[in-house]
Amino acid sequence: MAKEKKQPRPKAETPRGFRDYFGAEVLERQEMLANIAETYQRYGFDPLETSAVETVEALGKFLPDTDRPNEGVFAWQEEEDGGWVALRYDMTAPLARVAAQYRNDLPSPYRRYTFGPVWRNEKPGPGRFRQFYQCDADTIGAASVAADAEICAMLSDTLEAVGIPRGDYVVRVNNRKVLDGVLATIGLSSEDEATRQAVLRTIDKFDKVGREGVIQLLTKGRLDESGAYIDGVGLDAAAADQIVAFLLARADSNAETLVMLRKLIGTSALGEAGVAELETIATLLDAQGYGPDRIVIDPSVVRGLGYYTGPVFEAELTFEILDDKGRPRQFGSVAGGGRYDDLVKRFTGQDVPATGVSIGVDRLLAALRAKGRISGAMQGPVVVTVMDRDRMADYQAMATELRNAGIRAEVYLGNPKNFGNQLKYADKRESPVAVIQGSDEAARGVVQIKDLILGAEIAANASLEEWKAQPAQREVARGDLVAEIRAILERQG
Amino acid sequence: MAKEKKQPRPKAETPRGFRDYFGAEVLERQEMLANIAETYQRYGFDPLETSAVETVEALGKFLPDTDRPNEGVFAWQEEEDGGWVALRYDMTAPLARVAAQYRNDLPSPYRRYTFGPVWRNEKPGPGRFRQFYQCDADTIGAASVAADAEICAMLSDTLEAVGIPRGDYVVRVNNRKVLDGVLATIGLSSEDEATRQAVLRTIDKFDKVGREGVIQLLTKGRLDESGAYIDGVGLDAAAADQIVAFLLARADSNAETLVMLRKLIGTSALGEAGVAELETIATLLDAQGYGPDRIVIDPSVVRGLGYYTGPVFEAELTFEILDDKGRPRQFGSVAGGGRYDDLVKRFTGQDVPATGVSIGVDRLLAALRAKGRISGAMQGPVVVTVMDRDRMADYQAMATELRNAGIRAEVYLGNPKNFGNQLKYADKRESPVAVIQGSDEAARGVVQIKDLILGAEIAANASLEEWKAQPAQREVARGDLVAEIRAILERQG
Repeated sequence: MAKEKKQPRPKAETPRGFRDYFGAEVLERQEMLANIAETYQRYGFDPLETSAVETVEALGKFLPDTDRPNEGVFAWQEEEDGGWVALRYDMTAPLARVAAQYRNDLPSPYRRYTFGPVWRNEKPGPGRFRQFYQCDADTIGAASVAADAEICAMLSDTLEAVGIPRGDYVVRVNNRKVLDGVLATIGLSSEDEATRQAVLRTIDKFDKVGREGVIQLLTKGRLDESGAYIDGVGLDAAAADQIVAFLLARADSNAETLVMLRKLIGTSALGEAGVAELETIATLLDAQGYGPDRIVIDPSVVRGLGYYTGPVFEAELTFEILDDKGRPRQFGSVAGGGRYDDLVKRFTGQDVPATGVSIGVDRLLAALRAKGRISGAMQGPVVVTVMDRDRMADYQAMATELRNAGIRAEVYLGNPKNFGNQLKYADKRESPVAVIQGSDEAARGVVQIKDLILGAEIAANASLEEWKAQPAQREVARGDLVAEIRAILERQG
Repeated sequence: MAKEKKQPRPKAETPRGFRDYFGAEVLERQEMLANIAETYQRYGFDPLETSAVETVEALGKFLPDTDRPNEGVFAWQEEEDGGWVALRYDMTAPLARVAAQYRNDLPSPYRRYTFGPVWRNEKPGPGRFRQFYQCDADTIGAASVAADAEICAMLSDTLEAVGIPRGDYVVRVNNRKVLDGVLATIGLSSEDEATRQAVLRTIDKFDKVGREGVIQLLTKGRLDESGAYIDGVGLDAAAADQIVAFLLARADSNAETLVMLRKLIGTSALGEAGVAELETIATLLDAQGYGPDRIVIDPSVVRGLGYYTGPVFEAELTFEILDDKGRPRQFGSVAGGGRYDDLVKRFTGQDVPATGVSIGVDRLLAALRAKGRISGAMQGPVVVTVMDRDRMADYQAMATELRNAGIRAEVYLGNPKNFGNQLKYADKRESPVAVIQGSDEAARGVVQIKDLILGAEIAANASLEEWKAQPAQREVARGDLVAEIRAILERQG
């Protein structure tokens, strides 16, 4: 008889670049997002949840850092009509689609917030996943920079609401029009889009490569750390100096910064419009009590995305953490955004001004964890152990009573034969209290209750007798079960 | 000069079968899921969130109602290694993968709950979407039917927690082993898997086609409503009668039902094991206070899924609603589940018992809406109108004061020129109060506040003068703005 060929077992693995979230990780994110939602709602923003799948046509070519269509997304072809669809890569493209699709039904301006996963078909790396959470707030249909100022104020309030105190963060504001004004003074026409994008990408690296590095990259190029030569943008030295002067124009006060910017833009009308917008934003925020300790004009903020058309902003955490190698470094950016007046126009042909911000959920959570300002830890359940398999109904009734009193409780449902396994289980579950009732206790109408926090020093392998002898364990009347356990939980705090 | 060719505009549409959720729809779901989570947590279940994407290998061929691999899912090939991945189609397959992948780290038994979207590559229809929410709770590693009983009790508690009162629902429990016992009495070997699956699919239609319909389908076949002939399973009449007797074996009490089932299974050991399990479940639930008014043994529950191996259960809402044509009908099933002891074994080769339940989130939400038991409606924001564009900072300061007092508030950020548009906007936002301050009021240190609920009768097109003359509008000192608005909101309740 021929041996039957066995199919190989499937591998129990997430696809590369994907991960799972367990217990406290899920609860911590939920807690933070609930705090954020409360703040957003107070500002008049309404929730929206779009489908995870969009037509590739609707998504467009706005993926950050790439000029290649359909690259960077997870896309597939519909069987029925052959149309291409893809998982959303951010929350802005779906919002632009919604704003166009429902333009006759939505209020205008339309303020909305949204939370959810986005997907990027990129090479995964350490801490770099292909599915991650974003949390966005945007205002569609408000041309006034009052909408941008509002987003900045809301971002400031949001950071404080989740647990980043004043002084530990700063929201930095800039304006793309000012940069375009500066580029005009060095003879770069706003129509030379390729060069403009190259300049944008280069000065976005300012934090990484510093002043000299940016000057090299704007002119002839430079050797990077790996020894590879990076081609420069090809500007002359004077032009590069002018751009770097712009990046470094942040002064002690917003007023002084604005004076410096006015000098740098010369006679550019676009530049002047940008400076005026920054001035308005600063005035509005000042009137609302948001001083430069919380929100400040800082020309070094660029934001890599090509689609921004006016104000851009970034929230930076200013405290230090230790990196992988134990060296202190600033935590850095956790949110960014800006005005993008052309995204909805793609669909409708009509001008629809828009501005918004996106919070990097995982980065902000990491910051809160680093500072000990969030804990999703849930109280472990009271574990009712099983001494006598035939009396499962009694044990279940105890758990039910506890639950009805609002206490998290469960019966041990593994094989009850090895009592040590039950105790190991309670330990793994971070259970505060174990309940034990053998036939002897049942006959006498009592139960043993064990304060596991108090008794944490006991080895998991202790015998039942040793375990029962510990002072953390007491015998109480069966009728007092709930009251006695509540008293222990209250004492444990 | 040749005319430049314009690219056609993209269509602003969700892909076929996908939808967006706005405002209250999002909040209602969140509220319901928060209630469910609280109940699940009290039972000792921990949250888990798996990645949306799985390898096709890990997902397996367990898609309901199809024997075809990879059909029914959205799948694509990885660029790098050519491996196939897909969006999850349910929460059970990813859980089986997690239970295998993390088997050395997770507590055993492992109780987990999860919420989130799942995706099905099926033909969309009215009310039938290709992305929808599921909410599951499962216990991995508990062989005892006490785990099944616990899931049933938790399901009962959950329905009451979200707002379905006792009497408006019933959790019905059955056992696949009993059915297999009945099939054995009619000479169907448990190894004739194809016939067994055909019988399962047929009797799952009992609700739709009734007693006679099921008998026809089990034997020679029948003409369906559309006039098409549906082939029968090919059993003889006596066998079909025996199966239908099983389906109808529910008696007035669980004890009587168990007596009838024992008769129907004859000498089948598997059948006897199934009846004994049902008896244990009934005893456990009785001891916990869940009588047959809430959880009842009902042999007509089958559940279409092939992978169940023991107890199966279903939660049914028993109240009537009106269908699309105004006819009353029972609301029907909102949740179902059962024991599936073979899913984790696929990965590990070792027996890992498992049981769980899945709530149809959208159906349960629809039920709560139909009964008026949920409202995600958020209080609309106080709208600060803009009479004088140059005094935007003053208006923003008012909104900030209101927000700092915990009141939802926003400044109108559209074009302020047409005051009527501002009022239409406040109306669309369901704003409770509008704030108005022209230069005259500003000079005198006052503001107009308008109770929009009281003044709802006023046409949106009324002139500013008419509007200001209404009794619902009052002039108050600027310094009293927050206190006066709070008083109105409290009055509006």
